[in-house]
Amino acid sequence: MSLNGFGHLFRVTTWGESHGPALGATIDGCPPGVTIEAEAIQHWLERRRPGRSKMTTQRQEADAVEILSGVFEGRSTGTPIQLMIRNTDQRSKDYGEIANTFRPGHADIAYHLKYGLRDYRGGGRSSARETAARVAAGGVARAVLADLVPGLRITGSMVQMGASRIDPARYDAAEIERNDFWCADAERAAEWAEEITRLRKDHDSVGAMIEVTASGVPAGLGAPVYGKLDTDLAAAMMSINAVKGVEIGEGMAAAALTGRDNADEIRMGPDGPEFLSNHAGGILGGISTGQEIVLRFAVKPTSSILTPRRTIREDGTETEIVTKGRHDPCVGIRAVPVGEAMMACVLLDHLLLDRGQTGGKRGLIG
Amino acid sequence: MSLNGFGHLFRVTTWGESHGPALGATIDGCPPGVTIEAEAIQHWLERRRPGRSKMTTQRQEADAVEILSGVFEGRSTGTPIQLMIRNTDQRSKDYGEIANTFRPGHADIAYHLKYGLRDYRGGGRSSARETAARVAAGGVARAVLADLVPGLRITGSMVQMGASRIDPARYDAAEIERNDFWCADAERAAEWAEEITRLRKDHDSVGAMIEVTASGVPAGLGAPVYGKLDTDLAAAMMSINAVKGVEIGEGMAAAALTGRDNADEIRMGPDGPEFLSNHAGGILGGISTGQEIVLRFAVKPTSSILTPRRTIREDGTETEIVTKGRHDPCVGIRAVPVGEAMMACVLLDHLLLDRGQTGGKRGLIG
Amino acid sequence: MSLNGFGHLFRVTTWGESHGPALGATIDGCPPGVTIEAEAIQHWLERRRPGRSKMTTQRQEADAVEILSGVFEGRSTGTPIQLMIRNTDQRSKDYGEIANTFRPGHADIAYHLKYGLRDYRGGGRSSARETAARVAAGGVARAVLADLVPGLRITGSMVQMGASRIDPARYDAAEIERNDFWCADAERAAEWAEEITRLRKDHDSVGAMIEVTASGVPAGLGAPVYGKLDTDLAAAMMSINAVKGVEIGEGMAAAALTGRDNADEIRMGPDGPEFLSNHAGGILGGISTGQEIVLRFAVKPTSSILTPRRTIREDGTETEIVTKGRHDPCVGIRAVPVGEAMMACVLLDHLLLDRGQTGGKRGLIG
Amino acid sequence: MSLNGFGHLFRVTTWGESHGPALGATIDGCPPGVTIEAEAIQHWLERRRPGRSKMTTQRQEADAVEILSGVFEGRSTGTPIQLMIRNTDQRSKDYGEIANTFRPGHADIAYHLKYGLRDYRGGGRSSARETAARVAAGGVARAVLADLVPGLRITGSMVQMGASRIDPARYDAAEIERNDFWCADAERAAEWAEEITRLRKDHDSVGAMIEVTASGVPAGLGAPVYGKLDTDLAAAMMSINAVKGVEIGEGMAAAALTGRDNADEIRMGPDGPEFLSNHAGGILGGISTGQEIVLRFAVKPTSSILTPRRTIREDGTETEIVTKGRHDPCVGIRAVPVGEAMMACVLLDHLLLDRGQTGGKRGLIG
Repeated sequence: MSLNGFGHLFRVTTWGESHGPALGATIDGCPPGVTIEAEAIQHWLERRRPGRSKMTTQRQEADAVEILSGVFEGRSTGTPIQLMIRNTDQRSKDYGEIANTFRPGHADIAYHLKYGLRDYRGGGRSSARETAARVAAGGVARAVLADLVPGLRITGSMVQMGASRIDPARYDAAEIERNDFWCADAERAAEWAEEITRLRKDHDSVGAMIEVTASGVPAGLGAPVYGKLDTDLAAAMMSINAVKGVEIGEGMAAAALTGRDNADEIRMGPDGPEFLSNHAGGILGGISTGQEIVLRFAVKPTSSILTPRRTIREDGTETEIVTKGRHDPCVGIRAVPVGEAMMACVLLDHLLLDRGQTGGKRGLIG
Repeated sequence: MSLNGFGHLFRVTTWGESHGPALGATIDGCPPGVTIEAEAIQHWLERRRPGRSKMTTQRQEADAVEILSGVFEGRSTGTPIQLMIRNTDQRSKDYGEIANTFRPGHADIAYHLKYGLRDYRGGGRSSARETAARVAAGGVARAVLADLVPGLRITGSMVQMGASRIDPARYDAAEIERNDFWCADAERAAEWAEEITRLRKDHDSVGAMIEVTASGVPAGLGAPVYGKLDTDLAAAMMSINAVKGVEIGEGMAAAALTGRDNADEIRMGPDGPEFLSNHAGGILGGISTGQEIVLRFAVKPTSSILTPRRTIREDGTETEIVTKGRHDPCVGIRAVPVGEAMMACVLLDHLLLDRGQTGGKRGLIG
Repeated sequence: MSLNGFGHLFRVTTWGESHGPALGATIDGCPPGVTIEAEAIQHWLERRRPGRSKMTTQRQEADAVEILSGVFEGRSTGTPIQLMIRNTDQRSKDYGEIANTFRPGHADIAYHLKYGLRDYRGGGRSSARETAARVAAGGVARAVLADLVPGLRITGSMVQMGASRIDPARYDAAEIERNDFWCADAERAAEWAEEITRLRKDHDSVGAMIEVTASGVPAGLGAPVYGKLDTDLAAAMMSINAVKGVEIGEGMAAAALTGRDNADEIRMGPDGPEFLSNHAGGILGGISTGQEIVLRFAVKPTSSILTPRRTIREDGTETEIVTKGRHDPCVGIRAVPVGEAMMACVLLDHLLLDRGQTGGKRGLIG
Repeated sequence: MSLNGFGHLFRVTTWGESHGPALGATIDGCPPGVTIEAEAIQHWLERRRPGRSKMTTQRQEADAVEILSGVFEGRSTGTPIQLMIRNTDQRSKDYGEIANTFRPGHADIAYHLKYGLRDYRGGGRSSARETAARVAAGGVARAVLADLVPGLRITGSMVQMGASRIDPARYDAAEIERNDFWCADAERAAEWAEEITRLRKDHDSVGAMIEVTASGVPAGLGAPVYGKLDTDLAAAMMSINAVKGVEIGEGMAAAALTGRDNADEIRMGPDGPEFLSNHAGGILGGISTGQEIVLRFAVKPTSSILTPRRTIREDGTETEIVTKGRHDPCVGIRAVPVGEAMMACVLLDHLLLDRGQTGGKRGLIG
């Protein structure tokens, strides 16, 4: 990872601030000859778009993506793809208070300390709006993956909101697209909808846990020992705004397991090796095994709340702040498509990297 | 992160296999003029060394580090520092079974699938022995940090073994150096010692949770939005063998919090801004705030156990395997100095990066 | 250098095709707090702009730069700066012949062989139009350099056109801005103007040699042994379209010298060390010495000429081609501001890199 | 290029000083399954070894390479390959004068200014001895290339010494291995031998021009517009000690050509496209065309001569220096195998990169 980019061979650099003229992603290293359409990218952006459901912010942003380069007659040329999204919902307003007051839980004070100045409008570069560029880049990655690994499927869902986790017994993948929480447990989704209403009235917000899985991933992706697939996935997810933890397979719970319980035993199946369990989350020694990749990340509660919080101004004086505006009571909801996009980018990147390193040849078993 | 290296400006590439002639770390980008002594690096290696206590593997490895380049008359010259550790405890033995059988929970099968061949002796490159090179590199990073940021202090400790967590009420930093678990809770350390004995007899192993903190870290380190300090720390920890999850500050628990509870309010103290809590773990928007940095990572239980596990051979036939040898019943113990070393490398790297980007100048408050 | 970007800490990625909607540069790593104005960048773009003089192509392109991110209230924020230039002079025309015929001397056939498809409109990505993005990025680099190293001065000029070199005895830096060739020898400039007219009539083109110097460069820039200042400068210049050779100081002529003639002897001057000559071109061991940096690069003659050339079509049939359009008879002229821009980017990049590595401290003499 | 490493996917980092215990190369990204033998690498090192002929330095250095990692049972495993060469000919001597006096033409003063200290023994890191590590790495690259592109052939030769160039009419590739100059013109080689004797007596040295060609290179290598094949080759050659200029194809002479003369016309041959000339040197738009790659680089005369030169000491006092020791009167001779090694590394690197980006598929013609 560099300052504002990530990826070894499929390299994505995002740019832009929340309230500047535009934001976007510069993709360097997209394979040539793949059908890339703005409409297909737009499809993924819609899933993240503010105002999409009652559960998220009511800001209306079109988030329309334009492809400025790298695609000719509908196909990628192998040259950099520039994706631009104009910022349209920039209400003219007085930023007076935010301009010189640090909102607790936000990056305001950290940017000020580092850079000595900051674009305070809507958080500037540290705004979650930056993730729109990730989702756009993820749309390109998905198009290439569909071409190279037709069976690969990425699924994100919300598995916890506040202290309430989904019931694995009620997990139904088909539910994910049916509710406003990308939740596979319909009952929990209904409860969470009520909870969101309550939080809004209470001027509060709440955290969440997101799970992203990928099935159909070829074995052999990952570049040990520092470009491991799980290393790059952890970095990708931790780089998303408000994320405070990332885990693969058993994750943090692995601390409580014994070796006897944890090791995934192996058998020979009709199509090759089969694992009798998936505690590893599809990755061993940093390399994909062909099993489903399973990761989860925790998103902290939105820091922008209507409840007064103690803080200071740039001049050092103390004050209280109430962050007005149309904020998500649970940013975790909109983090689901972002997590999917990051998964798509990292998998494609490692697919290209592995192709470069090994020629994509696989060691045989049996 | 590249294949076998990490860091932006303080760039560490490790090399070597468990049972080859040697392993080591190539450090490119160490600042000049810093006192670097093999003895000081050795000090840190001793903390990780196998055979150091009854709680870890009884293999005896000297792990003596040699400085082959980059240091002249005791001081770094700004050129690459090559650190080499010879492998001495290579018992001549028959690797027959391991040579063509995949140990469950190990990287054996993944390396085979990716590369088509592997150095099966002791896990080869995927052996935890690789972490000796990290600790050596961390020793260099600590020497430079001591020079540039005298007050900075890194502390690793084990906060959970199996299902047993330390009691925060009994936390005593002075205890960490007094027991075989780097545990700040003396009572837990005593219980864990008994548990390790029991696990050994039972031919089993157990997972653990490590906490690494850093105090005295200057505000302003971190390069948003992909070279964030927490992003690079997460990658650094996830790249360690057997790590399955990483969290910063509240971490995974942030999912269960409300915005009102989570935001760290700010006041003006005698020396500048002060936070009334540290849910963020010292990092906001990917940038250090000057508060203590707090992270934890989970280590899965050792996969090498004496209990038979079902598996397959390279030729696809099924079998059972018992992994003999002198293995750690809890690799988490020896992961403590490794986590500290990675913290040191990442902090130094970001210190240099920030110096390059901003000149190390800080925005003023008050 | 990566695929479409260069720089260690001041990282420039250019994007865009000759006849797409826009092209530009994504700058990641610009130091914060520097005044960056579109007008100032535009100033440098004007020097490269087609249609600027009778000696260059008569295409009229506005080349108006827009700053889309990274600048707030006129100052850089430390976040990515996106510079966009819309393509306006896209004459609607029939590309029929070029679409499936490879122009000799152009990258057409190479792109086809590598990517299997190409944006054939005006050369697509391989068009010299890409260098507009370099000049824009160079404008940002110059603004930062002006802030950090006030005395630094970069000067590009054309020192040879075809077989005609300038006469060192007539070198007058003030002349450079007075003629259409950025030529320090007024007499040569006049001769070259006549020659250009003749070449145009003759449907031919001609090569050139460009010199770029930088004075006021601090000693100590350069990261041996692969990130040497001369290595990065050579790469930067060789990456410019049509460049076939690069040299520093004595350059290729160093092959003919003896050691006695070549070494620059050193004396102590009132302000520190002084060299009695500058055969080295200001760089020793890859590190700047404080002397003037002197480099030259050769630009091949424009391949687009009105004289028929033998070639083949994509289907393998043979044909002849005449490349119509409004092409520069000597692309070397417009390469002057491009070379200056690359010099500015590389020097700034190494300034930041050195600041990161050494803190910008200098070893003392005397 | 980073500080001490180069390459995108086949990444070589060299380390070590002239008079330290050892030097070497860390190779990260070598494809797995390739036969790598120390003997084969040694073969290439012998060509560069000091004391090999009467024309070079009479220092005797064994330059025996050891493979410390990344190779198992004779084949590469895909993990880092560590190549170490011990320094044996470290005569114990008094470095008193060199220790605090800057040798003109050497990097002494530049290292001092940048780092504030330097390993003055034999030039330390800036010694041409570093190139032994390059040649060793090149040996690995050649082994992989032999596996992936059997017909590829790299040939280095000296084409000029001082003002004396070879006569193209007498060019005979078979001669290259028969004389001490890697010279394809036997007559020139004989003249140069006399000239070297004269220079030695005269306490002087001389520069040289090296040509490196590669035939059998697949079309499609190169990553425009900044990872161009010619860009990376220029950087690779310019990074070699004492190199002051690099050119591809017509090179600097392209400045004097007209478009009519310069463009390589294309015809359809029995096996695909054929070019009627090779002014381009095998690279168009930064991408290989399948034609022979032709580059040349100029090496300045050895700065270490027995003739007194004016200089200063660290304390600023003025003095004269005579650089004793057993130095090459023409370092260009031993630069031939170094140039070949760099060519091998860059070509392999781009082969892997292209495989990653495009899958190695080629656009069809006809």
